[in-house]
Amino acid sequence: MKIGFIGLGIMGSRMAGNLQKRGHSLIVHNRTREKAEPLLSHGAIWADSPAEAAAQAEIIFTMLAPTHAVAEAALGKEGFLPGFEPGRLWVDCSTVDPSFSREMAEAARAHGIRFLGAPVTGSRSQAALATLVFWVGGAAEDLESCRPLLECMGNRVAHVGGPGMGAALKIVINQLLGTGMAAFAEGLVLGESLGLSRSVLMGALLGGPAVAPFLTFKRERIETGNYGPADFPLRWLQKDLHLAALSAYDSGAAMPLTNVAKEIYQLAIQEGHADDDFSAIYDYLARNAGAKRPLSEPVEQPA
Amino acid sequence: MKIGFIGLGIMGSRMAGNLQKRGHSLIVHNRTREKAEPLLSHGAIWADSPAEAAAQAEIIFTMLAPTHAVAEAALGKEGFLPGFEPGRLWVDCSTVDPSFSREMAEAARAHGIRFLGAPVTGSRSQAALATLVFWVGGAAEDLESCRPLLECMGNRVAHVGGPGMGAALKIVINQLLGTGMAAFAEGLVLGESLGLSRSVLMGALLGGPAVAPFLTFKRERIETGNYGPADFPLRWLQKDLHLAALSAYDSGAAMPLTNVAKEIYQLAIQEGHADDDFSAIYDYLARNAGAKRPLSEPVEQPA
Amino acid sequence: MKIGFIGLGIMGSRMAGNLQKRGHSLIVHNRTREKAEPLLSHGAIWADSPAEAAAQAEIIFTMLAPTHAVAEAALGKEGFLPGFEPGRLWVDCSTVDPSFSREMAEAARAHGIRFLGAPVTGSRSQAALATLVFWVGGAAEDLESCRPLLECMGNRVAHVGGPGMGAALKIVINQLLGTGMAAFAEGLVLGESLGLSRSVLMGALLGGPAVAPFLTFKRERIETGNYGPADFPLRWLQKDLHLAALSAYDSGAAMPLTNVAKEIYQLAIQEGHADDDFSAIYDYLARNAGAKRPLSEPVEQPA
Amino acid sequence: MKIGFIGLGIMGSRMAGNLQKRGHSLIVHNRTREKAEPLLSHGAIWADSPAEAAAQAEIIFTMLAPTHAVAEAALGKEGFLPGFEPGRLWVDCSTVDPSFSREMAEAARAHGIRFLGAPVTGSRSQAALATLVFWVGGAAEDLESCRPLLECMGNRVAHVGGPGMGAALKIVINQLLGTGMAAFAEGLVLGESLGLSRSVLMGALLGGPAVAPFLTFKRERIETGNYGPADFPLRWLQKDLHLAALSAYDSGAAMPLTNVAKEIYQLAIQEGHADDDFSAIYDYLARNAGAKRPLSEPVEQPA
Repeated sequence: MKIGFIGLGIMGSRMAGNLQKRGHSLIVHNRTREKAEPLLSHGAIWADSPAEAAAQAEIIFTMLAPTHAVAEAALGKEGFLPGFEPGRLWVDCSTVDPSFSREMAEAARAHGIRFLGAPVTGSRSQAALATLVFWVGGAAEDLESCRPLLECMGNRVAHVGGPGMGAALKIVINQLLGTGMAAFAEGLVLGESLGLSRSVLMGALLGGPAVAPFLTFKRERIETGNYGPADFPLRWLQKDLHLAALSAYDSGAAMPLTNVAKEIYQLAIQEGHADDDFSAIYDYLARNAGAKRPLSEPVEQPA
Repeated sequence: MKIGFIGLGIMGSRMAGNLQKRGHSLIVHNRTREKAEPLLSHGAIWADSPAEAAAQAEIIFTMLAPTHAVAEAALGKEGFLPGFEPGRLWVDCSTVDPSFSREMAEAARAHGIRFLGAPVTGSRSQAALATLVFWVGGAAEDLESCRPLLECMGNRVAHVGGPGMGAALKIVINQLLGTGMAAFAEGLVLGESLGLSRSVLMGALLGGPAVAPFLTFKRERIETGNYGPADFPLRWLQKDLHLAALSAYDSGAAMPLTNVAKEIYQLAIQEGHADDDFSAIYDYLARNAGAKRPLSEPVEQPA
Repeated sequence: MKIGFIGLGIMGSRMAGNLQKRGHSLIVHNRTREKAEPLLSHGAIWADSPAEAAAQAEIIFTMLAPTHAVAEAALGKEGFLPGFEPGRLWVDCSTVDPSFSREMAEAARAHGIRFLGAPVTGSRSQAALATLVFWVGGAAEDLESCRPLLECMGNRVAHVGGPGMGAALKIVINQLLGTGMAAFAEGLVLGESLGLSRSVLMGALLGGPAVAPFLTFKRERIETGNYGPADFPLRWLQKDLHLAALSAYDSGAAMPLTNVAKEIYQLAIQEGHADDDFSAIYDYLARNAGAKRPLSEPVEQPA
Repeated sequence: MKIGFIGLGIMGSRMAGNLQKRGHSLIVHNRTREKAEPLLSHGAIWADSPAEAAAQAEIIFTMLAPTHAVAEAALGKEGFLPGFEPGRLWVDCSTVDPSFSREMAEAARAHGIRFLGAPVTGSRSQAALATLVFWVGGAAEDLESCRPLLECMGNRVAHVGGPGMGAALKIVINQLLGTGMAAFAEGLVLGESLGLSRSVLMGALLGGPAVAPFLTFKRERIETGNYGPADFPLRWLQKDLHLAALSAYDSGAAMPLTNVAKEIYQLAIQEGHADDDFSAIYDYLARNAGAKRPLSEPVEQPA
């Protein structure tokens, strides 16, 4: 089966590489051809456009950002949807919002194409190691028809509902990462202000019932103060909290903690942490914390 | 009538001065005698201790900080309560919390002394101009018995309830100042980020229905960036928000905005604004605001 | 001069009426003709469509909601822009967001039409009394050319910048109303929980330096518990806080208080206050406040 | 070695029982003798007062609430400290705040007694199964001298620093439980509002990297809506968030998420969830969430 793969960035190139390693034939397209070279040198075919990829592929994967790049690849001047043979499957692994994913499902259906929205969680190294998690929204039978391919790239493939539901789940996950990181940072700063050593705190909390397991992987950054290069840049995490807040507004849910976390990350951005790993929220909150309270009070009053 | 006045700081010295200007005889005490000199040169009598003041005074005013200084003056080794003639009146103008004020009322009653808690709002210049506002908690008849004296020092004397109620009202006022200032700062930063000029914003908002009148007096500080010396230091405002939060917890009230404001002022303290006027919260929020959002998004995902 | 007026809702009908009372000739259009009858009976001409109004008018006012109704009236199948004589002026008084207002300015320019975005503040009664405030974004000379007309409908006409700036200012104003109302509600609930009477609180705070003047007009609602019919429904205020949060994200501003206020209003919506006046946030926060804290604590611990 | 055990509530009775099962001799005291009966029937000796227990015991454990009950047992009229043989060890397992624990350490030292503050995490069932975790603050050698006893009651004994540090760590843990639960509830409500099924959400999130392991134990409560009897009552959790906020203020740390969580739990208390398990914050946030946004907007404006 010939697989079209569009979008060969940090994640896409590694994902496509894993398909190739497992013996699948690829036809690939990327905005810049340079990033395709390693795949081409192992036998992948280059397509000058998404449309050209569609002419030869039996299934198409997209892994693109930002959102409008997905729309452009599918529906633009050289988009793949019009020339893709009806009945075939498009799997969009890009991180998009649920309503956009539903729009793409609609657009695909209008061209007779089956559609799965399958965003992933996992970093660069998990993409390389084929240990990504796929959150798949769409028809169960469509998922089953491509599950072996997804399992070449990840070690967990979860069917979470209809179109857009993969994107919805991903928003929730990132909301949990963002709030969990910030609340943990608050706890660390409090604990240290009270006199606990950082290593005692880390030892007592990480791996225990009260903190999310992902935080274990932030320990080294916090202990060394080394927040770059980021696994997940703070400003992208903040964007995802914004997306969660938007989705919550649209769907009538209250998210007070999430909204406050969003604003605190914004303040951290303003203090220079935009491109740091999002665990730098600790650094922001810890800065100058622990000042002694003054012992006396002024008598003067406000106007 | 001979008036005892204990506590001659920035506010107390000006208040006592206004009593003296209106022809009242004073017996004064302060931690350091030096601050009493202007009053002494106009005929006030010096007392070496609160107890000594009580021996001669027919009414006692206290204007002290911090809270324990009030307790010390009244009940300490040389405190005035034991030697003050039963039936006389103590008016505490210090800023304290409601439960402390009620304790002082009890202590006074135990010595047969009448008590008013009468914290003020107003700054140094309002103290000098005798335009303070007194928020008086205690018996109405006790207030009436000393109203002419309060009116020598302020232009509004409000009876707000029993013991501790003056302190309670003052907490509410400072909570409103703190949240109002922070919300206004947010609005200014938003408006400027959207392209409005600061002078248009100031002109459109100040004096209008949507913002508190006290904000008019913050305009110059914000426009010049000159936050010192403070009319009301940011860290004292933050302490008052903390007091409000404490009182709210104890009395079963929810104050989400107030608590968030408290934390934002804390972050501003950590960035160096502790001793600035509390209007410096604008400076904190405005710092590096308005950065352009990046146009593209990374594909990489969190661990 | 013949004035086209499109949109005769609660506000628009009163605004058009004031133009008519001052002797101006109107040609009016509304989605339903019924609301135009009072104006027609005093000599206004009916237009079956925005395009028909444009054919005869020398200036066009729009007062429409929601946002897409503005776009439809200007650019839809029977929109007024294509047939409006180049060089003439369109004044949009609708409440829209800044970027939409800039889009309309662009669309107008493409048709050779001058454009002012001029949203208003003021309620139904202020519309009737011609005491609205206009926040005008656009060219100063365009504003001067129609200022006399705006002054027939309002008593303050402020030029606040280029296209979209009127909308920007209005977002800031509503953000201040929303946060100011919620913070005042918190203060009232705290004060009452501490033992202050509501009438003492109202008397001490309203009209004073610490609270915004608009709150004086909420006193009766709070004291009577009568939140309907709304002057400004809570859910529209919450939408405006959402708009402020969106604008802040896009322009890189942090608004922690505003975001929390947005969420607290959302919780109030969930408890049934959506259509109440937004001052009902007091009712929401006051409900069951003031419960005594239990005196003892359990020994049992969390899992 | 004869062990004195004071405080036989839900936790203390099970902890003492585990010491007894492992062959240790107990002398026990409790406010009501009734709760001691199971221990007495297996050979424990009853003491009529803490002082009487101290006369015979070589080590004393306390497991009491509220805080002042600890002070009373140690320093009250029949307190154990004065009569306890110098050089012996007091292990306080009660949940108290760090400064109180340091005060007890001081009081013990003044009587020549060694002191460990050793609060636990774990519920009733973990107390019964001897799988509690002890967070021990005090001298390392004092901990080593009693470690075998602690290991009769728990499966993890962590030395976290000097006096008060056990209490400090426990505050951090409960802050993490409170914020983690609330943020998870927000995520669930958002996910469900977006169309994800609760079982998909639970399956995708629980046990994964983004959520704390303790949340797995809340799944059944959330799925059945059965929040009573509580493992950890919401109002006690809220009290602990308040303690965290207090400690943070005193030590100069900013905790915006924690403070907001505190207020949201307060609102949930006001809606009737005080005695529910703290996972009922989901129920509070989910109530009436997901309402459709209205499609049109009113034209009317605020006063």
